Amino acid sequence: MDALLDANAAFYRAFESLSLARMEEVWLRAAHITCIHPGWNALVGWGPVMEGWEGIFASAFAMKFTLDDVRCVQRGDVGWVVLVEHVESHDRDGKSLGVVQATNVFERHEGRWLIVHHHGSPVYPPLAGRGPAMH
Amino acid sequence: MDALLDANAAFYRAFESLSLARMEEVWLRAAHITCIHPGWNALVGWGPVMEGWEGIFASAFAMKFTLDDVRCVQRGDVGWVVLVEHVESHDRDGKSLGVVQATNVFERHEGRWLIVHHHGSPVYPPLAGRGPAMH
Repeated sequence: MDALLDANAAFYRAFESLSLARMEEVWLRAAHITCIHPGWNALVGWGPVMEGWEGIFASAFAMKFTLDDVRCVQRGDVGWVVLVEHVESHDRDGKSLGVVQATNVFERHEGRWLIVHHHGSPVYPPLAGRGPAMH
Repeated sequence: MDALLDANAAFYRAFESLSLARMEEVWLRAAHITCIHPGWNALVGWGPVMEGWEGIFASAFAMKFTLDDVRCVQRGDVGWVVLVEHVESHDRDGKSLGVVQATNVFERHEGRWLIVHHHGSPVYPPLAGRGPAMH
């Protein structure tokens, strides 16, 4: 499990680096990789996934992640991590704080865990008296 | 892959049934299951996940799903499906249409694929001139 959590941490360090080269190092170079940024449809395959990161990195001055409620499951050479990202972003509009609920799926290839799917979604502040969200 | 896609389809039929008993049949009864409804933090474990469904089913009169862009990956006894849900919901406020980007993770136990993680997130309409979403 430690290696899987290390791979998850490496993904966020690559994210904070705002370096496409570093982000490329933590993903599996494969056609089946998928990436869902908050509010967006899935990007599918190496090219679209990396172009997505390029766009995000181009508009950000700095990003800092604090991870919370990290839960991880490993089954052989596959693992997934469910967690909360507290994100501090700096861009041309200033500083913003966000909360993102994320799912990250990893595959182990030649002993190395690489991310194959990232799904981030916004967390809304709870409303008084509201039950679980409609799907 | 067919059995995995069948399990994914069975999950949405259980969702449309608005029956907790049917939803219970398609999930693995385990402490590590997780469920993220749009805008919400993860529910963890059998009790919270099923209470979440109970709340959703209690407030819905009818739900109908049309699935789109269904992509599935299988690795041994684990598989994940990334897809778009077009959701038609009827509740006391009337009818609404929604688009949800979803990740579903399944494990095969005794030859049967059961869902262990569901992550649904809202898809926002694209804005002209906007690049990929900030994370």
